[in-house]
Amino acid sequence: MTNWKEIDLLAKTWVKEAGQKIKEAMREEVTIETKSNPNDLVTNIDKETEQFLIDNIQSVFPDHHILGEEGQGDKLTSLDGIVWMIDPIDGTMNFVHQKRNFTISIGIFENGIGKIGLIYDVIHDELYHAFQGEGAYMNDTKLGKMKRVPLEKAILGINATWITENSRIDPNVLSPLVKRVRGTRSYGSAALELAYVASGRLDIYVTMRLAPWDYAAGCILLNEVGGIYTTLNGKSVNFLENTSVLAGNPNCHQTILSDYLSEQ
Amino acid sequence: MTNWKEIDLLAKTWVKEAGQKIKEAMREEVTIETKSNPNDLVTNIDKETEQFLIDNIQSVFPDHHILGEEGQGDKLTSLDGIVWMIDPIDGTMNFVHQKRNFTISIGIFENGIGKIGLIYDVIHDELYHAFQGEGAYMNDTKLGKMKRVPLEKAILGINATWITENSRIDPNVLSPLVKRVRGTRSYGSAALELAYVASGRLDIYVTMRLAPWDYAAGCILLNEVGGIYTTLNGKSVNFLENTSVLAGNPNCHQTILSDYLSEQ
Repeated sequence: MTNWKEIDLLAKTWVKEAGQKIKEAMREEVTIETKSNPNDLVTNIDKETEQFLIDNIQSVFPDHHILGEEGQGDKLTSLDGIVWMIDPIDGTMNFVHQKRNFTISIGIFENGIGKIGLIYDVIHDELYHAFQGEGAYMNDTKLGKMKRVPLEKAILGINATWITENSRIDPNVLSPLVKRVRGTRSYGSAALELAYVASGRLDIYVTMRLAPWDYAAGCILLNEVGGIYTTLNGKSVNFLENTSVLAGNPNCHQTILSDYLSEQ
Repeated sequence: MTNWKEIDLLAKTWVKEAGQKIKEAMREEVTIETKSNPNDLVTNIDKETEQFLIDNIQSVFPDHHILGEEGQGDKLTSLDGIVWMIDPIDGTMNFVHQKRNFTISIGIFENGIGKIGLIYDVIHDELYHAFQGEGAYMNDTKLGKMKRVPLEKAILGINATWITENSRIDPNVLSPLVKRVRGTRSYGSAALELAYVASGRLDIYVTMRLAPWDYAAGCILLNEVGGIYTTLNGKSVNFLENTSVLAGNPNCHQTILSDYLSEQ
């Protein structure tokens, strides 16, 4: 019998320890590598944080599987068993340029069902956390259930890229949506943006390209506050694949799908 | 002889006190009024904060002039003498929807010359401050001089509105700029965004419509770190008028003016 409360306690302990290590390492010089493109900055700290989390998980739960952004975890073809999806630093561009507004994101699944979601805003020491069936929290503050918000009063999280010429979506599809909502914001960390949706600071969030470790924890938070998430085609997200994501308030979600995306 | 150190000390004291009052008032119910359009939310707290600042300024400095967003200050036609430009809550939409990411912004001028700039991120307790000729700070940390950053490595602060159909600029003007920079962000408080530029978290910021109290303090911060600011036509901003603003790193600023805006 899996002791989920033990997993929850350890996961929270490790994410806080990892945050502390990141803060200490930031005081030293950051050696930056560039992966495939200049937008994809990875730092030594990123890799060390992932390894720290993997070492801890494997030492206590050798039979758990791990999917990690930096590729030091497992290669998975199914969600059978218990799977940890880890992004050691979500928002690496913010990490490098801003030294803030990045998160550690951990989603833990059992046979494909989200059990525990953790998104830790390291610099602000704000841990967004959810345990299946027990609600979602920011630190000790319980997050309320989502209220119905019409699109005209909604704050939309969207990066300007998706309404500019790009390889994934015609910029004319979402431009009218930007006009219709009350306002838009863009923070540069998908996990943070999903935590903002779960805590009602954004009403809806749209993005064209996320990996499972970017959105896993956020989706588990959303489950607990009555949020909804699909691909931009309205299909269920597959937690083993990169995907587009439309996540947030159910009525905003439905309106966007029917008014802007039904013919995509 | 004006005692600027006394003004600086009092301004900092008042802005902190105002922040404390805002936090206390937030615990009570927020009564929201709607001004001319739904994007322009104003709260009782906004007006009370402005009045608190005005009362303090007038009690100690009865000959100073005050320009305030909520209109409880003076109507000015010149910048002669000492002028305080006050935005009691910059980012009112964030204030209402997010209960964070809003600032108190105060710029103090003498005969049109910026002397003191204060931008207070109330919830994060981060005071960005500058005193003419003595550098700019975030709390006790001195902000470094801006480094040369090519546009391809720059983070651009821009709201998606300006690359969508709108009444102020052809969306095709700035869309190519969004493609060229490393990334974009949008935080919904001009003063906060200018503070982010001054502290190097954004490299350049562009917006089409600001009032003097939105950008006054930010410009004084920028003066101290080697930043530059003009209208989108490359002209000096007039601190008595609403204006477009292009602010940030001098080489990004120059490249944007010459490559995207010279024919506007």
